[in-house]
Amino acid sequence: MKDLAQQLRVDAIRASAAAGAGHPTSAMSAAELLAVLVARHLRVDLAAPDDPARDHLILSKGHASPLLYAALLAIGAIDEEELLTYRQPGSRLQGHPVPGTPLVEAATGSLGIGLAIGAGMAMAMQRLEPRSSRIWVLCGDGELAEGSILEAVEAAGSERLDALTAIVDVNRLGQTGPTRHGWDLQSLRRRFEAFDWRVLEIDGHDVRAVDTAFRTASETRFRPTVVLARTIKGRGVRRTADQPGLHGKPLADADEAIAELGGVRHIRVTPPKPVGTRPRDRRSPGRQGRSLPSWPVGEAVATRDAVGETLVALGASRPDLVVLDADVGDSTRLARFKDVDPQRYFQVFIAEQLLVGAAIGFSIRGWTAVAGSFGTFLLRAADIVRMAAVGGTPLRLVGSHAGSSIGSDGPSQMGLEDIAMFRAIHGAAILQPSDANQAAQLIEAVLDWPGFSYLRVLRGETTVRTPVKTKVSIGGSREIGASPKDQVAIIASGVTVDEAIRAADLLRADGIKARVLDAYSVKPLDREAVAAAVKAVKGRVVVVEDHRPEGGLGSAVAEAMAELGTPIRMRHLAVRTMPGSAEPEEQRAAAGIDARATHEAALQLVNGPSPT
Amino acid sequence: MKDLAQQLRVDAIRASAAAGAGHPTSAMSAAELLAVLVARHLRVDLAAPDDPARDHLILSKGHASPLLYAALLAIGAIDEEELLTYRQPGSRLQGHPVPGTPLVEAATGSLGIGLAIGAGMAMAMQRLEPRSSRIWVLCGDGELAEGSILEAVEAAGSERLDALTAIVDVNRLGQTGPTRHGWDLQSLRRRFEAFDWRVLEIDGHDVRAVDTAFRTASETRFRPTVVLARTIKGRGVRRTADQPGLHGKPLADADEAIAELGGVRHIRVTPPKPVGTRPRDRRSPGRQGRSLPSWPVGEAVATRDAVGETLVALGASRPDLVVLDADVGDSTRLARFKDVDPQRYFQVFIAEQLLVGAAIGFSIRGWTAVAGSFGTFLLRAADIVRMAAVGGTPLRLVGSHAGSSIGSDGPSQMGLEDIAMFRAIHGAAILQPSDANQAAQLIEAVLDWPGFSYLRVLRGETTVRTPVKTKVSIGGSREIGASPKDQVAIIASGVTVDEAIRAADLLRADGIKARVLDAYSVKPLDREAVAAAVKAVKGRVVVVEDHRPEGGLGSAVAEAMAELGTPIRMRHLAVRTMPGSAEPEEQRAAAGIDARATHEAALQLVNGPSPT
Repeated sequence: MKDLAQQLRVDAIRASAAAGAGHPTSAMSAAELLAVLVARHLRVDLAAPDDPARDHLILSKGHASPLLYAALLAIGAIDEEELLTYRQPGSRLQGHPVPGTPLVEAATGSLGIGLAIGAGMAMAMQRLEPRSSRIWVLCGDGELAEGSILEAVEAAGSERLDALTAIVDVNRLGQTGPTRHGWDLQSLRRRFEAFDWRVLEIDGHDVRAVDTAFRTASETRFRPTVVLARTIKGRGVRRTADQPGLHGKPLADADEAIAELGGVRHIRVTPPKPVGTRPRDRRSPGRQGRSLPSWPVGEAVATRDAVGETLVALGASRPDLVVLDADVGDSTRLARFKDVDPQRYFQVFIAEQLLVGAAIGFSIRGWTAVAGSFGTFLLRAADIVRMAAVGGTPLRLVGSHAGSSIGSDGPSQMGLEDIAMFRAIHGAAILQPSDANQAAQLIEAVLDWPGFSYLRVLRGETTVRTPVKTKVSIGGSREIGASPKDQVAIIASGVTVDEAIRAADLLRADGIKARVLDAYSVKPLDREAVAAAVKAVKGRVVVVEDHRPEGGLGSAVAEAMAELGTPIRMRHLAVRTMPGSAEPEEQRAAAGIDARATHEAALQLVNGPSPT
Repeated sequence: MKDLAQQLRVDAIRASAAAGAGHPTSAMSAAELLAVLVARHLRVDLAAPDDPARDHLILSKGHASPLLYAALLAIGAIDEEELLTYRQPGSRLQGHPVPGTPLVEAATGSLGIGLAIGAGMAMAMQRLEPRSSRIWVLCGDGELAEGSILEAVEAAGSERLDALTAIVDVNRLGQTGPTRHGWDLQSLRRRFEAFDWRVLEIDGHDVRAVDTAFRTASETRFRPTVVLARTIKGRGVRRTADQPGLHGKPLADADEAIAELGGVRHIRVTPPKPVGTRPRDRRSPGRQGRSLPSWPVGEAVATRDAVGETLVALGASRPDLVVLDADVGDSTRLARFKDVDPQRYFQVFIAEQLLVGAAIGFSIRGWTAVAGSFGTFLLRAADIVRMAAVGGTPLRLVGSHAGSSIGSDGPSQMGLEDIAMFRAIHGAAILQPSDANQAAQLIEAVLDWPGFSYLRVLRGETTVRTPVKTKVSIGGSREIGASPKDQVAIIASGVTVDEAIRAADLLRADGIKARVLDAYSVKPLDREAVAAAVKAVKGRVVVVEDHRPEGGLGSAVAEAMAELGTPIRMRHLAVRTMPGSAEPEEQRAAAGIDARATHEAALQLVNGPSPT
């Protein structure tokens, strides 16, 4: 086992040397930890990577990737040639781990997210699965300062998530210098113990101690375990051991270091196999068994209510569905799911990074998770959302209380930048239904969307205008009142669709024909429909949205038209001021995104020059 | 004092009743806490709100705003008439507190941010100011689950920030139900003690106990203090006391409740006056005393290096300048500031929410703070950035490692969504210098920018092209190689400016004239210059950026042209794939944002139809 650890060091150094980059010293500190883990404790079957009874390894200190790749070589998951492709274009052995690589199930590298993901998996196992798997999260000591770690520490301890083991590689050196607590393991112990974790302190280079600790962790019930491993960064090589200033740098003389470590070895080990039961069968019966709720045209319903009711309706026919809440489920309406199956409703309290990290963990365990909060508070998890996309993990967020229309609670509660942030996420679906019937179809659609989706819903009621049988889908849009003689088009989404339709009525009273395009799919935008509408009115377009002027629907329309070369003269109504407290209608009037402002903007366009 | 507390309850109920909205029950639990604080401990002078010796109150549980407003009435900072404007349009008494209201210095309402702001103030006091002030942060128990709180708890305890007192209103009820720990004060005590806080447990309705606790906190040295106050939500009214389901709801029968509380009172109290010394004079000598570093045209320099060196150069002439780092100062180059004055360089470790929250705290104390990390990790603090803008507090972030051009570290480290997020922030300046001389001028410019600014800098070197004497300013741009016969324009920013210029050279070899616009100010965009360039080339524009296609420079250009009605046919080159590991040049080639791709896109435009 000692030899295996040295081999991992050597191979991590070789990989980094070949790449001319990487973090070998961060790998060297954790060599015994990972060697013992893969050889003795991590129950995985390389031939059946999705076996539900498998254990999980999350390399939360993702920059130690060369160590992981060295371990993959040792267990025969990759060959030597591949090891030396580390960080090369096209190699799956990236600078920081990404799924597609053996054992890697979550993208890491943004520090602090691994434990939240692991906590999500452990929550799923604890309540919904016959427990046999364990989750091993290898953390750096530096990242313990991250709030995302601390949120997970609090949750895992309080929820007694005993499937979870955190292994902390306490090498005392961060990137710029010593970590806050250095080798003061007592300080770290006190913290974890306060959060009700079992704490094991060990010398992280003593393979027996490591082995014993991992066995103890496996046997611990009713508490998560943290193994605080005192280690030496750059361990094994005199010139790198415990030296500052070497973070993220390949070794100056790799050959000398490899010689000092005893040279290249070719030890191969086989991890223990998964054992035990499989999770309950939760295959979805598909869309046959289900019926979506629907609302008659003309009724006033909040889209948040529609989403809540639809999840309730889907809950029975989709046993794979779970819902996560951050103590606002009464507002987002996701709490209604509790009545379907309290076991599949998870309260993570006011901790949005944990909310999203846990949702990723549920996804990895094969659950279809929907997580929700106020849209603006989900910004707290922006970095983890981004990392979900890096990993290609499905992630479904519902953000309520969109825009200034929430009313007198004021700007702290308003989602005004949420579309801008989330639209930039790779592969995202950004959806904003304008009525209940759209909301019902769209929340069902995101359940099968393969990447990140963000469903933005409203606090207040809007008028149901979409007939029940009208198909609403990701990438679609809905045209309202189009005629060949239209002089102006109003493109809106969510709450502003009602305003746009009212504005079109006002325009009609002026003798002006206007069409409304309900762009409920902000991304992918229905470019064809937008371009057709823009061309039909010779470029005279009002875009009206309850969002900041940057990065939202107006941007999406402008980008698409610029790229298509479709002439447009856009009046862009968006929230350009800092709102205060006021009623919803007053908010929209103050921001200039109500029917009156839309009407006025359209008039100016019709009376002004045309770009075409 | 008991009467005063009852008065605050009554007035909070009255205000909420008048508004028909608000969180009176969350106010009622903390009535004694705030009554004793303002009457006996909070040293403020309403006539001199900026007295540096003043204490600070941060209402981290911002939804308890009616309690704060009731206290403002009691100390004579507002009158009764104003109290009843709570949540009305135009009233400064918003649903959640915003600066402009007496005693309010930071916008709150997104839970969990108050303690990080308070920690920043306490850091400033501890190291840079003659300490006499205290910071009192009133937290809810629910928000203790937020990682942003926990980051601040860790930092304040470890840094022994004894100017800081957290008062936790443990009313046991969150929004949807009981909090995780309910009234288990022992659990909370263990957590805070583990982080080296002094913990005082009290009955939060016992005014003597509250008074004693606050006095003890004031006298505590070398540790921050947390007052864990066991309270009852809705306290004082039988129908609301400790009742679930009443969060955020005005009382059903306000008059009855007021009667039960003993009716309307008119107690007036005067808070204690600030005493003691004032902070050292740190008035900036302005721009006379300073000289910016500069680089000769043609040299290759990374903009991150230029920013680091410029901050060093400004450090002497700007004693108000402080720099905050989250353990990446060697990479961002902000760590160089340590050599100027280690006292003004703050290491907050890997905790980006604390980084930004603390920077807000420094701003409130009158310091000019610059905080930095990798651009993409700053997304963790997106919600706090947003709240800084809500509060109108200056906040300067430097985000390094922009775009795919960082190289083989891979997507986890790449800032690819940062512009999208931060551009949507109200009043933001989003700046991306393409060379060192631009970077030097822009980092100086943001020091005096009144709102939020984000300076996006590069890991790799770019060619210095901006002559030293060329003025570079927020809202500006720089045109390169324009001639009246240009057939195509390339708009770029940051690293892609070099690529754009190389593409223009390639075009010249094809006999095609192209101009390059360096849009270093992404927001405010230099609309006039962009429109002029677009018109000059009859709309044939390539926008090339190292960012996702949504929300960045391409969006800014498209939005502006659509609004101006300027015809454009834009080829938008941006990072549309998920990058892996590769060298910077390979990354740009793979993403299609290098000179070759730019050249090709320009050729297609020149050979294609024109929109004009």
